[in-house]
Amino acid sequence: MPVVLGPNRYGKAETRLVRVVRDGDVHHIKDVTVGSALSGDMEAVHLTGDNAAVLPTDTQKNTVYAFARKHGVAQIEDFAILLARHYVDSQPTVHHARVEIEEYFWDRIPGASGAGGGRHSFVRSGRETRTCVVHHDRDGSTTVVSGLKDLVVLNSTGSEFSGFVQDEYTTLKPTGDRVLATEVSARWRHLPGASPYGESYDEVRRCLLGAFAETYSLSLQQTLYAMGERVLNTRKEVCEVRLAMPNKHHFLVDLTPFGLDNPNEVFYAADRPYGLIEGSVLRDDTPDARFAWE
Amino acid sequence: MPVVLGPNRYGKAETRLVRVVRDGDVHHIKDVTVGSALSGDMEAVHLTGDNAAVLPTDTQKNTVYAFARKHGVAQIEDFAILLARHYVDSQPTVHHARVEIEEYFWDRIPGASGAGGGRHSFVRSGRETRTCVVHHDRDGSTTVVSGLKDLVVLNSTGSEFSGFVQDEYTTLKPTGDRVLATEVSARWRHLPGASPYGESYDEVRRCLLGAFAETYSLSLQQTLYAMGERVLNTRKEVCEVRLAMPNKHHFLVDLTPFGLDNPNEVFYAADRPYGLIEGSVLRDDTPDARFAWE
Amino acid sequence: MPVVLGPNRYGKAETRLVRVVRDGDVHHIKDVTVGSALSGDMEAVHLTGDNAAVLPTDTQKNTVYAFARKHGVAQIEDFAILLARHYVDSQPTVHHARVEIEEYFWDRIPGASGAGGGRHSFVRSGRETRTCVVHHDRDGSTTVVSGLKDLVVLNSTGSEFSGFVQDEYTTLKPTGDRVLATEVSARWRHLPGASPYGESYDEVRRCLLGAFAETYSLSLQQTLYAMGERVLNTRKEVCEVRLAMPNKHHFLVDLTPFGLDNPNEVFYAADRPYGLIEGSVLRDDTPDARFAWE
Amino acid sequence: MPVVLGPNRYGKAETRLVRVVRDGDVHHIKDVTVGSALSGDMEAVHLTGDNAAVLPTDTQKNTVYAFARKHGVAQIEDFAILLARHYVDSQPTVHHARVEIEEYFWDRIPGASGAGGGRHSFVRSGRETRTCVVHHDRDGSTTVVSGLKDLVVLNSTGSEFSGFVQDEYTTLKPTGDRVLATEVSARWRHLPGASPYGESYDEVRRCLLGAFAETYSLSLQQTLYAMGERVLNTRKEVCEVRLAMPNKHHFLVDLTPFGLDNPNEVFYAADRPYGLIEGSVLRDDTPDARFAWE
Repeated sequence: MPVVLGPNRYGKAETRLVRVVRDGDVHHIKDVTVGSALSGDMEAVHLTGDNAAVLPTDTQKNTVYAFARKHGVAQIEDFAILLARHYVDSQPTVHHARVEIEEYFWDRIPGASGAGGGRHSFVRSGRETRTCVVHHDRDGSTTVVSGLKDLVVLNSTGSEFSGFVQDEYTTLKPTGDRVLATEVSARWRHLPGASPYGESYDEVRRCLLGAFAETYSLSLQQTLYAMGERVLNTRKEVCEVRLAMPNKHHFLVDLTPFGLDNPNEVFYAADRPYGLIEGSVLRDDTPDARFAWE
Repeated sequence: MPVVLGPNRYGKAETRLVRVVRDGDVHHIKDVTVGSALSGDMEAVHLTGDNAAVLPTDTQKNTVYAFARKHGVAQIEDFAILLARHYVDSQPTVHHARVEIEEYFWDRIPGASGAGGGRHSFVRSGRETRTCVVHHDRDGSTTVVSGLKDLVVLNSTGSEFSGFVQDEYTTLKPTGDRVLATEVSARWRHLPGASPYGESYDEVRRCLLGAFAETYSLSLQQTLYAMGERVLNTRKEVCEVRLAMPNKHHFLVDLTPFGLDNPNEVFYAADRPYGLIEGSVLRDDTPDARFAWE
Repeated sequence: MPVVLGPNRYGKAETRLVRVVRDGDVHHIKDVTVGSALSGDMEAVHLTGDNAAVLPTDTQKNTVYAFARKHGVAQIEDFAILLARHYVDSQPTVHHARVEIEEYFWDRIPGASGAGGGRHSFVRSGRETRTCVVHHDRDGSTTVVSGLKDLVVLNSTGSEFSGFVQDEYTTLKPTGDRVLATEVSARWRHLPGASPYGESYDEVRRCLLGAFAETYSLSLQQTLYAMGERVLNTRKEVCEVRLAMPNKHHFLVDLTPFGLDNPNEVFYAADRPYGLIEGSVLRDDTPDARFAWE
Repeated sequence: MPVVLGPNRYGKAETRLVRVVRDGDVHHIKDVTVGSALSGDMEAVHLTGDNAAVLPTDTQKNTVYAFARKHGVAQIEDFAILLARHYVDSQPTVHHARVEIEEYFWDRIPGASGAGGGRHSFVRSGRETRTCVVHHDRDGSTTVVSGLKDLVVLNSTGSEFSGFVQDEYTTLKPTGDRVLATEVSARWRHLPGASPYGESYDEVRRCLLGAFAETYSLSLQQTLYAMGERVLNTRKEVCEVRLAMPNKHHFLVDLTPFGLDNPNEVFYAADRPYGLIEGSVLRDDTPDARFAWE
């Protein structure tokens, strides 16, 4: 039985780039991590170590920095598209490129005066990470998936869990009032054609937070669906939303041994195990995703 | 445009289980982390919060512990199959189950005498983590993917890199002697039907290490392919191997400013960025993977 | 040569507590991690395993939760003092208690309406972690050190580095304009007697950020000193500030191979190695710290 | 109240060094991370940013690599001493140097033949990390503390816990048979004068493991003391041992709701909170530690 090469790709992961824009003495910064992965005519390098078709990962790193100088980094999706198309268009042996970027947010240091205050001094905001994954194929298709991760949210009431299946391994009691907490990882696929990625990001984030806060929750699945649905009902450039939401359990501590009640006030925040709810919400007529989610 | 529910699953992640087997006063331990994810008739819970089809993740956790008592934990693949089949067979609303397990290795503390020595005292070996992912569907299919991760290997010579594409962003110099280091993540798909999972694991690991050590490498892709190929040529129960291998760069430090040469002896081990090589090797006639890799 | 027991302590580390306060249907949350460590008459337990003087770490965990219900958690320093005094006052074998607490910040989800909006829905802010370490001894002394960590700041200009020692291993070039970035870990010791810990925290943080932003920096040491000095000049309840500030190097990328200049715009943010600057600033007449920093 | 500079130091942290020794075609590797911190006449740099007394951290990094080439890296303690003395002896403004090194272990890939097998192919062993901290002062004193961390051990029986203090917050039940697991962090101080560091490390490790395995444990403190005592009774070059040992709780799972007993066979391995036991064992006549433990 002969052995053959299956799907493969190679690239440079986690290139750290900080891009400063100097607008007079007011500076702007963009803090991102870029990864690229290429595929194409790669039989030779796997079978015989012939690198004639290989654009080294070191060159991919250089390209990121050079493009940052030449083109700037505005929306991460646009920068990823630029890179992905460059690799496919400039290298005959590269048939497909995947570029992913993470962005970290910074705020200006507030209230400072003098040298740096407000003009070139920043504090990392620590809020969620913005993400994107772009694919470009030599058939001309480009797909764009935007996303966020590490967005931790909590409702201290407005959540129940009951009416579930009982079997011989059930010990959980139904509850009419619990803490619902999760760390949202969301990705959303754009319809073909350019989206206004910056505005889109802000609005999708607003939809996710709003739906989380405003949904009276009978299950985390219900909340997840409401979040995806709101994005699709609000943003016409988005055709599919995928969410992964761990149920970060907050267990009510039993204080009765100490002669105390606990009216949903004192919780133990557990690490592991945790529930993990994953689901997608999409338009009925959404176009085929092809390689967008890979 | 109506909005609909797409693919989804839910379950309990990272249930930590240590199983002790007492064979007289000689003990054996099995240290694993179990995750399960179920899918099926889940429209109602997403759209209205009706949990009538939901087997709670808490119950899944309980099931892991109860099954560990009733059936023991021998090979992780067998334990995962048992759990996956249980969920699908016992719950009409569950159409598909995915169970993943990680196993951590322990050695007996050597040379100790008296109470614990050699009989019930262990030291965590710290070598790689063993993994598996099992799917079971209500159509009766079961797929098994075994794996390992965190296996860090290094060749201090016997590796070149040259003959690659040059473009305007190339600065890398070809090299005829470099350190080749990587952290192997490998997964291998079993042909349908039970494999001898324990022996299979040991032998696949031996193949991976052997091929890494014995391949004179002109590129990391070539090494990757040789590793997968050796597994397939050696283990008839395996039909496909997928490997992800970061190129953990070891840069030769330039010591000439200090009047010193550096004949491939002093290296700076870099963290980021790193090359990332991913590829699969499979048999020509391998059966369709279906959901095995999800 | 006889062998003896030296300094020792034991306790429960990383008790995760989320405390909800229900003010009508407006909720407040406090998210903290508590650690306690006790010392005292502990010869017996070490030498013979006699636990008669040991208050189990499990009981310490219970005490945290019970106190959270009975007393609430307002400022973390006050809660830590309460716990530390309780252990020493209630247990004759405990001569000294150390309690440390970390606090994570949450914001209300903005702009939401309906069920949760603004009233019981929160998003983790992701800004720095607030810390404190409190000691209480049976001689009646209590020491309080407050702090913060994970506060990442960056000046994109206004920083030089030159005039340093040159030796045979020097290759660094002086620079008149660099990025200065660090992750501030700060701890400050309070004078004996209660401080307004909440206000104090906010103001110390404001001093640290302000001095970082407003100092034209000739070295990270100079910036560190300016930060500590500003705290002491502003907050009379603080007598000593200790700072640990890694120099998170942002290296200017050499783009000349690609025919591009780089006027301080494109940087590679390195992980390791990094400079590490540690120093303390204190009042001339500051009282002896005793065990405060342990 | 004038503000003054207190204790301070600066240096380069986490310099990653891999040193290859080529003994014909048999290679040896040493994989370490080095940190150095210097202190001395540092008023000027803190108060005015005058760097005339500062040996840049970049130069410290270069020195590590140059010394690795010139002197090799045999025992990490010897390499740290070499570096520490170099900084103090060569720089008049440096009065004190602290060097810390971590070492990671590698094994040869077993059983391989051909190009790499057994000669230049390695697999990271994953066992514990070896550590050292060396201080050298311009008064001529040198202190050496060796250590290890991440050594995870477990006794599946031979451990009790009872007879402890009961108070109003006690819920823990005494137990006559429990799992005792911990992750040992140990540091040991050498008497002045050179020790045979390699042999010493191996033997101290053997003592720690042996005493852990062979001690029938009534408390983790008793086990800790026995471990330190055995080191001191075995190794005459060591005068003090400090141990930090988290009690990694393994909770017996209650299987009675499922009609199952659990005779100490099925355990839930918890992450947080955990007990934390810290203590030192020393010789009666041990010399003053001075700055050794800083």
